[in-house]
Formats: sequence, structure tokens, C-alpha cells
Amino acid sequence: MLPFRVINQKTTEQILDMARVIETVEQAYTLKAQKEATLFPMVFYEFEPGKADMDIKSGHLTGANIFGLKLVSWFGENTEKNLPQLIGMVMVLDSRTGAPRGILSGEHITCMRTGAAGGIGAKYLARPESEHLLIVGSGHQAPFQILATLIAMKHVKKVSVYNARSYERAAAFCENIQSRLLNMVVSQFKGQDDLLGEYTKRCQIEFVPVENIEQTTREADIIITATSARQPLIQKEWVKPGTHITCVGADMEGKQEIDEHLFAAARVFVDDVRQSVNVGEMEIPVKKGVVTKETIIAEIGEVILGRTAGRTSPEEITIFDSTGIALQDLLTANLVLEVAEKTGAGTVVEL
Amino acid sequence: MLPFRVINQKTTEQILDMARVIETVEQAYTLKAQKEATLFPMVFYEFEPGKADMDIKSGHLTGANIFGLKLVSWFGENTEKNLPQLIGMVMVLDSRTGAPRGILSGEHITCMRTGAAGGIGAKYLARPESEHLLIVGSGHQAPFQILATLIAMKHVKKVSVYNARSYERAAAFCENIQSRLLNMVVSQFKGQDDLLGEYTKRCQIEFVPVENIEQTTREADIIITATSARQPLIQKEWVKPGTHITCVGADMEGKQEIDEHLFAAARVFVDDVRQSVNVGEMEIPVKKGVVTKETIIAEIGEVILGRTAGRTSPEEITIFDSTGIALQDLLTANLVLEVAEKTGAGTVVEL
Repeated sequence: MLPFRVINQKTTEQILDMARVIETVEQAYTLKAQKEATLFPMVFYEFEPGKADMDIKSGHLTGANIFGLKLVSWFGENTEKNLPQLIGMVMVLDSRTGAPRGILSGEHITCMRTGAAGGIGAKYLARPESEHLLIVGSGHQAPFQILATLIAMKHVKKVSVYNARSYERAAAFCENIQSRLLNMVVSQFKGQDDLLGEYTKRCQIEFVPVENIEQTTREADIIITATSARQPLIQKEWVKPGTHITCVGADMEGKQEIDEHLFAAARVFVDDVRQSVNVGEMEIPVKKGVVTKETIIAEIGEVILGRTAGRTSPEEITIFDSTGIALQDLLTANLVLEVAEKTGAGTVVEL
Repeated sequence: MLPFRVINQKTTEQILDMARVIETVEQAYTLKAQKEATLFPMVFYEFEPGKADMDIKSGHLTGANIFGLKLVSWFGENTEKNLPQLIGMVMVLDSRTGAPRGILSGEHITCMRTGAAGGIGAKYLARPESEHLLIVGSGHQAPFQILATLIAMKHVKKVSVYNARSYERAAAFCENIQSRLLNMVVSQFKGQDDLLGEYTKRCQIEFVPVENIEQTTREADIIITATSARQPLIQKEWVKPGTHITCVGADMEGKQEIDEHLFAAARVFVDDVRQSVNVGEMEIPVKKGVVTKETIIAEIGEVILGRTAGRTSPEEITIFDSTGIALQDLLTANLVLEVAEKTGAGTVVEL
């Protein structure tokens, strides 16, 4: 019999804090840069175009002795059935024996590791004194992007929030985002008094809904796009020198959040070159011939390791295309499992 | 919270009987032929060539409202660690909502569905009066191939067993195979008295280790190869008219069990054209230019549906290349889950 641990969503919420997830995702990126991690080809399938799809992302982290996969399905009509639209499962196995270690709910892990990626983009590529964060998209992912950026960047004083479809939604989001962030900080950092105090303070800033995206783009230091857009929401002419942009939304062919001409004017980094060019924010600029794959300076892990310079001047525009890679999920899931194995959280079952 | 069922190996052994698995695998093949099932691209990865690898096979069965995957890893050095070399997990999800239905131990499911495929090859392609079965390979899979063939073919009177490396192992296998088969029949068909009686009788036949593979090949009516060979074990000149051959072993590049020239002389069927040509028994014949992909008459589901003739004369040589497809695993796992949901077997956990 092969025992393994099943971890539900609530337990992943209890275990993970954004500071550790940022460290973990940095480690996933650096292991990849050090060739101690391998991404396997992604499997993508549409049950019904625009209504339901699924993907299987998998990989191997030699450096952490794990391999495995995340299966995520999206069923747009699930809300009517009282089920979540997105359902994710992460499977972690021991890469020395093939034995299963755990099956974990993938939803919160995905939210946290995706947020962490945004924080890491800002940490390594934005100007350190950045004060103004613009979040494009006020959906499920936005609070995680904000939390990670506030943890990574200590001078942020203002967060502008844009919803391309509805100013009212951005306004409603801004009304309660501070208390949502404070709740996240309190539950994630309880018992870590120094961090709790510091991050509580960082959340007590200004949150403003965006009426004029052009004007706000001209003012922002850091822009994070987390939408499902298929047309650019940010135009090149609006972006001031020194801005950092992280693109989170593009994860399949046809998605695009920012003007393709920005890539010709910026210093560009990605999490995975192949995925960025195939299904990420680089797909359309490359297909349109505005830039080539060679425009990408490096994968972000190279910057974290100090092998490649990130930002080289205060005037540069930098871009990080975070497509989301299995290594982030697997290493974050591994962190959950390590804590759960110590504390006895989750349910142990046998295969 | 999303509940799903975890089923361990012992429970899969208690639930599955070979007659129902044969029906289930036939259904998987026919759903594929009716375009009510889709195979996703296979992911294959070698941790260390020749020592450890893993694959992820996945797919969707519209006709059964399920999708999912099987992850199988093979670690050759696990025996020293007191772990099984092959570890498999099947993940089944509802294709109307993406919700998980079950995680199942994959080992026994794989053995049973692979055996069933061999039985189905004989049932649809061998001469109905076939009496002599030759099994090439006396490993883990051999008893399942024999059981399925005896269930599918009622006139078999003699089973010859060949081990290319060691006559002694084939002899040892023959010494206890009858009691192993009787145990399988008793445990699988208890409570189904008619079948129990009939299949018990069918196991009471002659089991003979092979000394001279050329001579035995010349006498056999049905040949099943279930080895990890990389050189042909059966030569074309040895095969008599009217023989049916099912090849089970080839599942990655470089494997080959039978003479490539047999394909030019036979009526050839496969479970999946792409997989057979890429990693199955057709790979080497096609790469060597002996035959082309077009040599394949049809996928076996077309024969089961009666859309394509299987054997068209008693003199023909027929071949079925059974590479093993995810649809077999998923539908067999679904059968286990349906029984378990009724009887309460397994452990229900929440995601």
C-alpha cells in the first residue's frame, strides 16, 4: 500500500502565506534556470470552445525531488450548478521512486503562486522606489497581485484598479479591497508578529478606481494586467519611461493584454520562453512580426540568480510575461505538503 | 468542498472481473470509432534513460461523461527499496462540470485492461476455432493475457509459454499458472455461478513451456507478445497461414517484438493509429520503410462496430497492435467507481 495525503482547499488557505510563496516561486524559477527543473509539454483541450476547457501542466523538479502535474478545468456554466467555474487538482510524486506524496486542491495554490509571480516581477524589474501600482482587471486574481506587490515593494502608496467593462465594478472592488487584504494578512501571518505588523501597515494605503485608463497609465510606476482580454488594454504611447509591466492573463492562443509595440520598446523577461511565445503575451507580437523570440532578454530565473541584469536604467520600460508554469504549482504544493506532514493536516489515504 | 473517492489497489482487485473489463474495453474502442472519445497527446519523460521514466496518458469520453488521465511511473531500482517498480494513478473527472470523481490505483486496472485488449484482439481477429495459444513473455502481464483469451475464445486447449531469456522461468510459470488462473477466476466470478463454472473449466487445459520458439510458432493459432523486447522474437517465415498475433509490449520508441516483414504480409489493426506508428509495434516497420501508415486497415473499434471486416479468410495472418490507450484506463476506472459508489467501497475525501 502506498500512502499519500489529500489536502483540501481550506487547508491550503490555512498553510500558505504570500511571503513564503514568493520565496517558493523564486526557487521554482531559479531551479529552472539552473536546469534542475524541467517543464513537460502542456496538454490543452476544449470541451466546447468558449464554454469549457481543461489543461494539464506537468514537470519535474530534480532539485526538490518531486514531479507531478496540475489539472485545471474551466466550465463557464458551473455557476448555475452551484459549482466553481475553475477546479484544479495538483498531484505531487516523489521523483526518486514514483510514489505519490499528495493530491491537493489547486485553486488557492494557483491564486497564490500567480500573485507571487506578479510580486516577483515587480521586485526584480520595477524601480525600487515605485509608489503607484495600476492593476488592470478587478477579478479573482487582483487581490493576490496586490498583496504580493505590497509585500515585495515597500514604497507603494497608491493602488489604482481598472475594470475595462465597468467602472462600477472597479469602484466596488476598491471599497472593500483594504479589508480583504487585511483579512488575508491577518490569517496568513498570524503568529509572525513582525511581518503581521509590517504588512498590515502596507495595506493601509489609497485604493482608487480608474476612470481614465490612459491618464492613470501615464502616472503608474508598476502595471499588472490580470484579465482575459483578447484586445490590448494598454497602449504603448501611454506608458511612461521607467514603468514596469507584468502580464498575467494570457495563457492560451489569442489572448492579449498590452499593445504589441510595447515589446519592441521594452526590456522583456518571461517565466518560460516556449510557453510565452506559444500561448502567452508574446504570442501575438511574434505572430504579427513586431518582435521575435530573440527579443526576450532571459527567463526571470536568470535575473533572480544575478546572471542577467534585470532593469539597467531608471528610464527603461520592463515587461515580465508570467504565463504560469507547473513548477510554481508543484513547488508551492510541496511547501503545503511539508507543513501538512509536520502538523498532520489533511487526510492520509492509501493507494 | 468537492467530494471524490480514493480507491486502492485491493479494491480494484475486488471489483473487476475480466468478462466485464473485456466489455468495457470494447466500449472504449467503439466510443473512439464513433468519435465519442478523444485521446490527448501523451507526455513521456525519462528521469534516467533505462532506469526510470513516467508517462501521462489522458483523454475524454464524451459518451461516458468522463475525462481524466493515468500517470504511470517506472523506477527499475524500486525493488531494492521494497516498492513496486510500476506505480500508476488514474484520475477520473466529470466532463460536464470538471469536478473530480475519483483517484484510483492504476496497477491492477492497467493489468486488466491490457489483458482484455489481448482477449479482444483474439475475439475479433483469430479463427473462432483456434485451439493453441502461444504467449511470448512470462512476466506480470502473461496471466492476464491468458485469462482474457480463455474467456474470449472457448476452444483453446493448449497454452505455450515462451521466455526468451530463460526456459526455466517459462517452466516455473507453467507449473503454477493453472492455480493462479483458477484463483483469479474464483475471486473475480464468485457469485456468478454460470460464468464461474464455465471459466473454471476453460482453465483446466495444458500449459507447456516452449523450448523451440520457431517450432511452436509454426503450430500456434494465436500468438500474444507481451515483452519489453527491442529485437523481433517472432520471424515472418515461422508464422503459419491463419495465425492471429496481438502485440502488447511496444509502448515507446525502439521497442519491437515481431519481424517487421510480418506487417507487409498481414491484415493489420491497431487501437490508435498515431500511437501505434509513433511508439507502438508499427514504429520500426514504418521507420524502416517496410510498410506505411496506410498498411493499417483500421482501428479495432471499427471492426467491433462491424464497419470494417476483421479477418476475411481462414488463411490470412492478422495482427492487432495494442499500444494501450487512456480511454481503456478511464472507462475501466469508471466501472470501478460506479460499483464503488453503489457499494460504498473506497474512501471519500474532499478537495
